[in-house]
Amino acid sequence: MARADSLRDHALTLFSPLPDRIALLDGRPVTEAEVVLGRMLYFDPRLADDGATACADCHDPATGGDGNRPTSTGHAWQSGPQNAPTLFNAMLNRARFWQGWDEDLPSATLRDPFRAERIATPDRMVAVLASMPGYVAAFEAAFPGEADPIRPETAARALAAYASTLLTPAPFDDWLRGEDAALSEAAREGLALFIDRGCAGCHQGVNLGGDSYHPVRVARVPGTESLPESGACFALEEADGAQYLYRAGTLRNVTLTAPYFSEGTVWSLPLAVEIMGRAQLGADLTEAEADAITAFLATLEGRPPPLMLPVLPAETGLTPRPQVQ
Amino acid sequence: MARADSLRDHALTLFSPLPDRIALLDGRPVTEAEVVLGRMLYFDPRLADDGATACADCHDPATGGDGNRPTSTGHAWQSGPQNAPTLFNAMLNRARFWQGWDEDLPSATLRDPFRAERIATPDRMVAVLASMPGYVAAFEAAFPGEADPIRPETAARALAAYASTLLTPAPFDDWLRGEDAALSEAAREGLALFIDRGCAGCHQGVNLGGDSYHPVRVARVPGTESLPESGACFALEEADGAQYLYRAGTLRNVTLTAPYFSEGTVWSLPLAVEIMGRAQLGADLTEAEADAITAFLATLEGRPPPLMLPVLPAETGLTPRPQVQ
Repeated sequence: MARADSLRDHALTLFSPLPDRIALLDGRPVTEAEVVLGRMLYFDPRLADDGATACADCHDPATGGDGNRPTSTGHAWQSGPQNAPTLFNAMLNRARFWQGWDEDLPSATLRDPFRAERIATPDRMVAVLASMPGYVAAFEAAFPGEADPIRPETAARALAAYASTLLTPAPFDDWLRGEDAALSEAAREGLALFIDRGCAGCHQGVNLGGDSYHPVRVARVPGTESLPESGACFALEEADGAQYLYRAGTLRNVTLTAPYFSEGTVWSLPLAVEIMGRAQLGADLTEAEADAITAFLATLEGRPPPLMLPVLPAETGLTPRPQVQ
Repeated sequence: MARADSLRDHALTLFSPLPDRIALLDGRPVTEAEVVLGRMLYFDPRLADDGATACADCHDPATGGDGNRPTSTGHAWQSGPQNAPTLFNAMLNRARFWQGWDEDLPSATLRDPFRAERIATPDRMVAVLASMPGYVAAFEAAFPGEADPIRPETAARALAAYASTLLTPAPFDDWLRGEDAALSEAAREGLALFIDRGCAGCHQGVNLGGDSYHPVRVARVPGTESLPESGACFALEEADGAQYLYRAGTLRNVTLTAPYFSEGTVWSLPLAVEIMGRAQLGADLTEAEADAITAFLATLEGRPPPLMLPVLPAETGLTPRPQVQ
């Protein structure tokens, strides 16, 4: 019991339990009208050029908040270069995107669909939204008093507001708050290893990751066939420091978010743990150790909020048609 | 008042209000366990070969239960030949698919994803389902006592059970049940025209369509640029009777289910009404008449049930990976 309390005390210096809600985004209160609008946008495939790709397709709340392919496909089966991360709890991340591109929240929200997979184009998206009275009313309700409420930036704000509701409290949070039975002995052993071996050096904070960028392959080349041939996270070429600074992703819901790493090359969580141990920490974890850490990581699988689909307004004669090719 | 009652009496000989629920499918009671499983399957993109295409992508409950493209795209951006119809109320259709291919419900449910757009392959789908303990348990709960519960046929049954819950009662149903104010005067005029001009000859029954097949272009070639170049519903070639028997689709939620016709070639509902009048009935509807009928059709836009996303089980080491190409 003394040991359990001491482990919890130590853990609380590195991690914190998930908040019940996110009241502020970029310093402004999240409003219900923003959330309602954001939920509409999140599930609307008509915002995409092809009329068939919603945010929820690559960041799917039914499957852990992420996609299920190594990298996402966009318009006309174009592939983006990197794995779509989970949006569950993502509004608590301070570091967004694998390579730290972004500055502010609207830019972050729009970068992916508008650039990487070329899913949507901003002008067309605005025209789609402005063509439907149901959206005009929803934007006016979310952004009262604005002369020109339908803009990419307001859409991004509403999407971020909706995403801020996608919090998934987990057994680990229950345990951090004092519920001893929430973590099995194996999970507590895994947690102790997770801290002792240095995993928590990058995967810390409320999201156990998602708040900082780190050079990859700081220790040595991982000896496994699971490496991608080129580029990105585990490049075999000599790394240029800046180029190979990558985000430590959140480990919340990691049991649900395979495939792993920035290129989505590894499907097994224990294998991903082993690779990280060797590549980043120079630690040859035994299978038992990797399994214990995996048992701990499983306690980060959270309880999503009720996920309701919106009922979206009908398109009108003014709505741009989807691009068929 | 007398006229309203007389119109209602006439209407009740042609149409019937939507039932509150569907208790039996193919003569067997729909169980809650089947519905729960069917909802999981309906929203799971991992059943598709590409790991990214769920039933809900082409039959999207957020946008009227149908797709938003003229025809759907499947694996690797392959296009199917025909417009994806709404699944709202579809379990009340007696005629399934545009061309009347199917016999029984399981065959109907599986024909589309397995054949037209080559979205899924049955063996791989079964392997995906069998790899996840959460699905094994859900199939055992839905099909107790079956030696081999995970089969394409049971999946189809569960999907049909879920689809049977997608009923959308509309103002027209309220009016049929005696609520006078549910239909405006314009809508009642449109209803009278809809009956008088013969629309109800094909679009009748509980779904105002969806229960019979008819030769298209029985009257004369519609004079509009909206025709597809070849094939299907409005082929300009001389029609072979059998080949050009098409289903009269349901008109429920037709305000939400553009683009129209089997190839999804027409986006405007009044234009679709005009085309149908000319092509099928030899009636040159005035714009005012087409507008009145459209006002009636708008009263078929229904109230969907609460649409909850499932929380799907995590894939395991045995789960087949998505095909990347």
